[in-house]
Amino acid sequence: MLRIPYDELVRTLVLAHRNLGYAPARAQESATLFAETTRDGVYTHGIARFPRLAKLVGNGCVKPEASPTFVSGFGALERWDGNYGPGNLNAWHSMGRAIALAAQHGIGCVAVRHTNHWMRAGTYGLQAAESGMMGLCFTNTMPNMAPWGGKQPVLGNNPLVIAVPRTNGAHFLVDLAMSQFSYGALDGYAARGEQLPVPGGFDKEGNISSDPKAILEARHPMPIGYWKGSALSMMLDVVAATLSFGQATCQIDEDPLKEAGVSQVFVAINPSALGDVSRIGDQIIASLHTESGSKARYPGEKLPAIRGENMEKGVPVDENIWEETRKIAGLA
Amino acid sequence: MLRIPYDELVRTLVLAHRNLGYAPARAQESATLFAETTRDGVYTHGIARFPRLAKLVGNGCVKPEASPTFVSGFGALERWDGNYGPGNLNAWHSMGRAIALAAQHGIGCVAVRHTNHWMRAGTYGLQAAESGMMGLCFTNTMPNMAPWGGKQPVLGNNPLVIAVPRTNGAHFLVDLAMSQFSYGALDGYAARGEQLPVPGGFDKEGNISSDPKAILEARHPMPIGYWKGSALSMMLDVVAATLSFGQATCQIDEDPLKEAGVSQVFVAINPSALGDVSRIGDQIIASLHTESGSKARYPGEKLPAIRGENMEKGVPVDENIWEETRKIAGLA
Repeated sequence: MLRIPYDELVRTLVLAHRNLGYAPARAQESATLFAETTRDGVYTHGIARFPRLAKLVGNGCVKPEASPTFVSGFGALERWDGNYGPGNLNAWHSMGRAIALAAQHGIGCVAVRHTNHWMRAGTYGLQAAESGMMGLCFTNTMPNMAPWGGKQPVLGNNPLVIAVPRTNGAHFLVDLAMSQFSYGALDGYAARGEQLPVPGGFDKEGNISSDPKAILEARHPMPIGYWKGSALSMMLDVVAATLSFGQATCQIDEDPLKEAGVSQVFVAINPSALGDVSRIGDQIIASLHTESGSKARYPGEKLPAIRGENMEKGVPVDENIWEETRKIAGLA
Repeated sequence: MLRIPYDELVRTLVLAHRNLGYAPARAQESATLFAETTRDGVYTHGIARFPRLAKLVGNGCVKPEASPTFVSGFGALERWDGNYGPGNLNAWHSMGRAIALAAQHGIGCVAVRHTNHWMRAGTYGLQAAESGMMGLCFTNTMPNMAPWGGKQPVLGNNPLVIAVPRTNGAHFLVDLAMSQFSYGALDGYAARGEQLPVPGGFDKEGNISSDPKAILEARHPMPIGYWKGSALSMMLDVVAATLSFGQATCQIDEDPLKEAGVSQVFVAINPSALGDVSRIGDQIIASLHTESGSKARYPGEKLPAIRGENMEKGVPVDENIWEETRKIAGLA
């Protein structure tokens, strides 16, 4: 693992985006999102995903020049079309629009269809929190998880994000896929030759398994909470596809190199519009930290330290990924 | 288990509510909610909870005459105070208000503080769906679940509901506590002398367990998805307590007979305000049912059949619960 200075990471990613056909401002914006994700320690969804994005641009699934367009709206609720543009830029635009609606109406909701993989889900929760808003967002995905009671992967793992701002900037942030382990996480365990800490899916024979390779081979990860995560995942798909009038998971190609046209929902809530919101979050954190010897942390608690370390020592980047990115950037 | 005709169930519950000090219209409303919950097969949260409600009215935790009052609002976002009134009536009022806001703004959000246990969470999702709205609601609870990595129960199991209307009335409805098994479900397994189908918590020694009695004794149920449900539960508490400016789980009494003053959030979304929403939900259901031999069901799928059977044959009610309720009603 290399340690790349943050600024060099951004510069290299800007050049690479330019060579994929991104206009200058959009190259800067997307490069920054990729770099920030890696800087924040979400290694599976940062620069590690960039070579796949390059392939999706190459095969036409992601259109670098496309921006979201307004479809319909009513008060604080809007529907947009992502026009198969880059998922991270579309998502940033959509949460920005939800924040603007929340500033006007107290709460805002934007559903977007025909968009693409948004990379790190938590990005858009933090975007809301940095604006003093609570953020809630979710996406559907290609079919990659079987429903509880079935074997065919007709559900997505449909990541869900909830963020709540704290005045000190150390925001609450939960960012979780509806599978016990994301495919990115399973890839990571498999690459390191490790077993999962808890059962994470089923092998080809349908037995519950903690072996990431067996689960990846069977394409049968387990939903969080068994039947509960299965139900929750399906509901997120129903809401996202219905509100955006876009594709449901069952209509999306299950080849990761053809996954295109997902449906997403972005909600922002302006708590300060109601008056006092005070330090309730701090009290909850204090109650969590009362127990001596507890390893319990609030969601997002480790982020500032990881970010600080990576800004100081350089951002960890896999050697092969770095080489590939530099090639796309024309630097190697 | 007795089978009580639905109308007799309502009538008896109305009398029992009147004897607890509920005004006539409110007795009718609450009795109907209790009866509907039992009719729909959610036996843990219907009439089975009524004797506990009677105790909470008796000790002053639930005030039968109190109604919600408006605290502050901004556009589509409002904060109300439940004034320690009956949780089911407060919740019904709050989702009703969210539905009215959604009719006006496309989406509406109502946070309510100082309210009480809302009994069956799914009631308010169905309420939205019956109005053609998507419904999202959640509540915090008394501390009854340890965070992942800790042993002290500083989290609630904080039920979450998502409902999406279908034109045929067989709505999508997910209604789940953030613990793998609700205390109601654990009580049920323990009473029947059954083991849990999957690990559901920890025993007093901190070992993962499928024994409902051991988990109840240790008061240590497991969050869905281990660390994921732990994080999600905490976030629901943060959002509910912050938006309502009410109590967080850590501030609520952990004795079930003193649990009072919880915080809740109700969101309604009007999908038809955006134009076409079509039959996307039906397509998702069809994709789920394609696999031969699959036992996968959409959330809410079993409800119409259970409801139909109970209306036809009578609603199942435990003999002791029925006796207690009839006593409160002055009929025994």
